[in-house]
Amino acid sequence: MCRWIAYRGETVPLERYVTEPAHSLVVQSLKAKESVGATNGDGFGLGWYGDRAEPGLYREVRPAWSDENLKHLCRHIRSPVFFAHVRAATGTPTTRPNCHPFVHGRWMFMHNGQVGDWSLIRRRVEELIPDEFYKSRVGTTDSEAVFLAILGGGADADPIAATMRTLTTLTELVSTSGTTEPLRFTAALTDGQSLYAFRYAYGGSANTLYYRETGHSVVVVSEPLDMDREFWKPVPPGHLITSRSDKPVLLEPFPQIARLAAE
Amino acid sequence: MCRWIAYRGETVPLERYVTEPAHSLVVQSLKAKESVGATNGDGFGLGWYGDRAEPGLYREVRPAWSDENLKHLCRHIRSPVFFAHVRAATGTPTTRPNCHPFVHGRWMFMHNGQVGDWSLIRRRVEELIPDEFYKSRVGTTDSEAVFLAILGGGADADPIAATMRTLTTLTELVSTSGTTEPLRFTAALTDGQSLYAFRYAYGGSANTLYYRETGHSVVVVSEPLDMDREFWKPVPPGHLITSRSDKPVLLEPFPQIARLAAE
Amino acid sequence: MCRWIAYRGETVPLERYVTEPAHSLVVQSLKAKESVGATNGDGFGLGWYGDRAEPGLYREVRPAWSDENLKHLCRHIRSPVFFAHVRAATGTPTTRPNCHPFVHGRWMFMHNGQVGDWSLIRRRVEELIPDEFYKSRVGTTDSEAVFLAILGGGADADPIAATMRTLTTLTELVSTSGTTEPLRFTAALTDGQSLYAFRYAYGGSANTLYYRETGHSVVVVSEPLDMDREFWKPVPPGHLITSRSDKPVLLEPFPQIARLAAE
Amino acid sequence: MCRWIAYRGETVPLERYVTEPAHSLVVQSLKAKESVGATNGDGFGLGWYGDRAEPGLYREVRPAWSDENLKHLCRHIRSPVFFAHVRAATGTPTTRPNCHPFVHGRWMFMHNGQVGDWSLIRRRVEELIPDEFYKSRVGTTDSEAVFLAILGGGADADPIAATMRTLTTLTELVSTSGTTEPLRFTAALTDGQSLYAFRYAYGGSANTLYYRETGHSVVVVSEPLDMDREFWKPVPPGHLITSRSDKPVLLEPFPQIARLAAE
Repeated sequence: MCRWIAYRGETVPLERYVTEPAHSLVVQSLKAKESVGATNGDGFGLGWYGDRAEPGLYREVRPAWSDENLKHLCRHIRSPVFFAHVRAATGTPTTRPNCHPFVHGRWMFMHNGQVGDWSLIRRRVEELIPDEFYKSRVGTTDSEAVFLAILGGGADADPIAATMRTLTTLTELVSTSGTTEPLRFTAALTDGQSLYAFRYAYGGSANTLYYRETGHSVVVVSEPLDMDREFWKPVPPGHLITSRSDKPVLLEPFPQIARLAAE
Repeated sequence: MCRWIAYRGETVPLERYVTEPAHSLVVQSLKAKESVGATNGDGFGLGWYGDRAEPGLYREVRPAWSDENLKHLCRHIRSPVFFAHVRAATGTPTTRPNCHPFVHGRWMFMHNGQVGDWSLIRRRVEELIPDEFYKSRVGTTDSEAVFLAILGGGADADPIAATMRTLTTLTELVSTSGTTEPLRFTAALTDGQSLYAFRYAYGGSANTLYYRETGHSVVVVSEPLDMDREFWKPVPPGHLITSRSDKPVLLEPFPQIARLAAE
Repeated sequence: MCRWIAYRGETVPLERYVTEPAHSLVVQSLKAKESVGATNGDGFGLGWYGDRAEPGLYREVRPAWSDENLKHLCRHIRSPVFFAHVRAATGTPTTRPNCHPFVHGRWMFMHNGQVGDWSLIRRRVEELIPDEFYKSRVGTTDSEAVFLAILGGGADADPIAATMRTLTTLTELVSTSGTTEPLRFTAALTDGQSLYAFRYAYGGSANTLYYRETGHSVVVVSEPLDMDREFWKPVPPGHLITSRSDKPVLLEPFPQIARLAAE
Repeated sequence: MCRWIAYRGETVPLERYVTEPAHSLVVQSLKAKESVGATNGDGFGLGWYGDRAEPGLYREVRPAWSDENLKHLCRHIRSPVFFAHVRAATGTPTTRPNCHPFVHGRWMFMHNGQVGDWSLIRRRVEELIPDEFYKSRVGTTDSEAVFLAILGGGADADPIAATMRTLTTLTELVSTSGTTEPLRFTAALTDGQSLYAFRYAYGGSANTLYYRETGHSVVVVSEPLDMDREFWKPVPPGHLITSRSDKPVLLEPFPQIARLAAE
């Protein structure tokens, strides 16, 4: 189980959320609290938007807690939209291409969860990826495959609908795959403008998701960055949040999957 | 273009061929001679058989020339059958799972070459891998996919026939894929007992392959390890060599592909 | 605080102690029990004796728990004397030369502990290393410096006396350095024949040390490898154990330091 | 022998000089031209000034040519003063702390060269570093030691004088050390405001150094980044250049060492 943080709002140095808080993401790489495994030491990644449409990306296989480069980058990079992720691998190797976030064009994605028994349904998930996007598959994780499937499902036109369609298909694949392992999908997606975060599971409990809104800025996290629990709102399972420019965060149930999972 | 060495014969310390010769594989990682690119610094690997049926494996993303671990292992590991490989990447990332050799059960494989325009035919090559072997696909290289396709093609029963069948299919895939990039396959395969090495190309020149036989031992290489050129016999394109216990090395034309390529 | 294991006895595959036990060293890299910090993910190392006087060495900056190479080496290397170590850094960077064990000629050493406030006394400890051994200083840890000081103090002639002399000097340096940070020295030393392990501290509690003797074999560990607590004998602070060929393990108080620390 | 580039001038994305030119620094990591060894694959580093007094730093042990992170950072980081360096190790291990540039407070330094036979004079060079700066010694290279010696020699007050004093002492150390190996010092130093670059050698030829001035911007390099040779001015041995805000680049002979070396 991984830990992550997504930010959208005023331009800030990344350190404000990634390295400085009492229970920062880097602290969570060593000692997470709301996670089965406390250690998230199987690599990490950082993605941020600057003055280009495509995000910058820094991914590394070493644990986040001892990476001097990460400290430097978090001090020196300022961004209005960024993701950071510390990984606890669930079967696929610890390589840079298997570290989150994943980027493709202006899109960026990261994930905490699993897609059933990956060894059973991997091929069918990879078949969801159109050729155009399959060329960008540089790693072997379920998460990257799901990201490319969402892009192939029409994220450019409607990212929420593309995600719902993909989750519907994944739920079907997992439910018919003969495994009892769950589909867990606690993920963030952005095009550099709007930020989407999803909490969902099929066949098991959903991984935790919280957010904190301050003025026009929002921080979305796997677990709170500090002890001020009252400021952190949980996202219920089967819900998603959307943060758009100059608008308050919108929390809503999944338009489609919630139904499916309830049936 | 990569460089590699395969050994089968009396039990020797790996250093005798990997690190000690004047033009050892480690020297070739920095300064290869018979190669388009002289530097093979995109990771390396070492696989050897000891007292188990399955080989041991050491793969690393750093260049071979500066790896202290490699020197230690080559000094301290003795083996009757081993492979060593230094990589020059042709598009896929520098990760440990993308480094050669690849192992599966008692089988081990390494490759110097390319499979046409990989981004065009990757999916169709991966479809050649039966589900049973697809679970072992931990990297993203063409080489690992070809290895698993050969295993899926019946290497246990007849490794040469399985390799011929796979090369026939790959040749068809490349020739109909609309690319002008060649299929190059200079590869070694072993089950820990017998050693097979192949030199083949379609649509371009075949990568070099040599061998040197001494008593009951054979060394097969991308390029000679020393200046005693007369002792190194070149393997012609479309040919393979087989080294079996207590038998001289057998050099022969491909039983099948040679025909295909000639047609 | 680090975790380590030292073995001397019948030739066995390293996996028997490093990777297979319920609470193996690799498990301890993720979840140690008798340690302030449970995670020992700042690199690891493996050193073993084979058919040469000098030991082989494999050190890596990635966590032990996810290193495929380590699993392969532990399965395939058999040795009568070996060390394995997982590191929790105490200030010096995570680099291979800073990972334990350290080797010099036929000697090998590893350490769990600290040498007071290293930034204060580093220069004076490095001055203890004779020029002849200073050339071998490739890292920046206190542990490597202490090892080279012990070698410079005459380990070839009398390893226990050389260690006692070095610990006496270190105790003086720490006690007069103006720091309140302790000297902790729970360490193993071998020349490939005899095995020595020490437990000592000045200015704080000594890090734990246990051993288990079976026939002519002994395993010395930071913490027991399984739940059979009765088989694991603790080494008291200020004590050392010696394991020599065909002799039972000898547990004895420090001949010199015990006095010093008691005064 | 390493390759490096230093920039001072208008704020530009780092890619303009590090990755984009025909003979960019990343190309030089694989195929340098004016260097004994063509490959500079023993790690690399990037240091840049943003909106803080202290520079940001990214250093990595893998070769620059295959590092995806480096490409991303060079595309996304913009800076008015930055250094980039690709390393060819001369004896010290390939670790991140041994990669250039080195930073301390607002100072940054990088080096191409060697300090005689380092194993002979290392201790005496380290003695040049005052305790205050010795605490910052995290690696083992001659280059880092020289940097800290320069800082200890009063760089804050007069960086050129501090460098001259240090080079005078180093020249004496090398000339009296009994080695025939040269002192080579082709280096860049900056406090984030002014840029200093030095070319010097004792006992051998000086490593190459060039610069190109365009408006108020200057690029200083080990070897030209493109074929427009006429725009690249060589810096003669025993000379230094200074680039200060709103002033043309000043090329001048060493005020002190030139004399010494001539005597």
